[in-house]
Amino acid sequence: MSRNSFISMAVIRRLPRYYRYLKAMHDAGVQTISSRELADCMELTASQVRQDFNCFGDFGQQGCGYDVDSLTRAITEIIGLDEEYRVVIMGAGRMGRSLIENFGFNERGYRLVAAFDTDPARCGEVCGVPVLPVDQIGSFFAANPKADIGVLSVPVTEARRGADLLMSCGVKAIWNITKEELPMAEANGILVENLHISDSLMTLSYRLTDLENKLYGG
Amino acid sequence: MSRNSFISMAVIRRLPRYYRYLKAMHDAGVQTISSRELADCMELTASQVRQDFNCFGDFGQQGCGYDVDSLTRAITEIIGLDEEYRVVIMGAGRMGRSLIENFGFNERGYRLVAAFDTDPARCGEVCGVPVLPVDQIGSFFAANPKADIGVLSVPVTEARRGADLLMSCGVKAIWNITKEELPMAEANGILVENLHISDSLMTLSYRLTDLENKLYGG
Repeated sequence: MSRNSFISMAVIRRLPRYYRYLKAMHDAGVQTISSRELADCMELTASQVRQDFNCFGDFGQQGCGYDVDSLTRAITEIIGLDEEYRVVIMGAGRMGRSLIENFGFNERGYRLVAAFDTDPARCGEVCGVPVLPVDQIGSFFAANPKADIGVLSVPVTEARRGADLLMSCGVKAIWNITKEELPMAEANGILVENLHISDSLMTLSYRLTDLENKLYGG
Repeated sequence: MSRNSFISMAVIRRLPRYYRYLKAMHDAGVQTISSRELADCMELTASQVRQDFNCFGDFGQQGCGYDVDSLTRAITEIIGLDEEYRVVIMGAGRMGRSLIENFGFNERGYRLVAAFDTDPARCGEVCGVPVLPVDQIGSFFAANPKADIGVLSVPVTEARRGADLLMSCGVKAIWNITKEELPMAEANGILVENLHISDSLMTLSYRLTDLENKLYGG
């Protein structure tokens, strides 16, 4: 697939949303969609949508709209959801366990292979995923292929130690659920993506404040 | 504060990130920042940053940079983090309880007043927040001021019933942590913001795929 070698983070951060909308349309049986319709879902202009897709190759014929099936498959591939990345979770407390039970890694195209925790009471099997004592991490990865992505869901005070453990077992990328920044991991060439769930609540706060200003003056 | 009456969702969705960067600089004692420096953090152009802030008023003098303290306070106000919105949580399972324990609503400018759950075993007090049986929701709000924001963190099968309960006690906005869409709430004029934590993992997948393509060809 022909691709620009530089793609801005702004475009990259829109890819998951394109994926979600296209996947929903695909599952609903929609066959073609115009850049205008996609732009409306995405709160962008049609020309921005066309520019975004042009970064990754040629997906549409002028005037015919995009083929939902092939565009969905292309974005699946661009995001790497067809790679079946192997995922390991460090920390099976409330958040880690909630991810195992509810996130649906496997349905989303990842392969969740194991979770680790320091607390023996949390170990066992959860939804078919082994939750192992953290001191077995070395022997686990001696016997199994490395994981690509490590999910860090330990208490904030344990974040750096947990990240070190993930790095020691060879993950290439860390999905950081903690509030702690991980500059050491990044300095070691590990990709780090911090989850900021508060951004979503702040967006809601903004919308509420804006609504109230409009209703009651502000 | 002079404001454009229409502000695009793209700008609105950037506000939480501006807030995070500015807050971190503010806490680190930085006094002024140029649109260029902010643009680098945000992966935007300096002119986009200036345009974004121009939507909300006049925050800088050409060539002098922005005053971090006043810009942080302005964005706090724009987002409504100074409103002390009252928050109630519906569902105190793993996710709800993890939010009570770790999210830090109060430190972020919200006031978490109570949580509700159908399971009596989950009720009690968690980090000073009362977790009450859901059948006490009516009497709780008869005796206390309404909540502004309801956090919906129930199992997906309970999502619509949980949203109805939040609406019945008068929330104006729902932060939806479930995977279920809530068209009924929106049709009733409730603001709904869906949390899509998978977007963050997809961004990481993209970056990993992109890196591997660059390293090994693709």
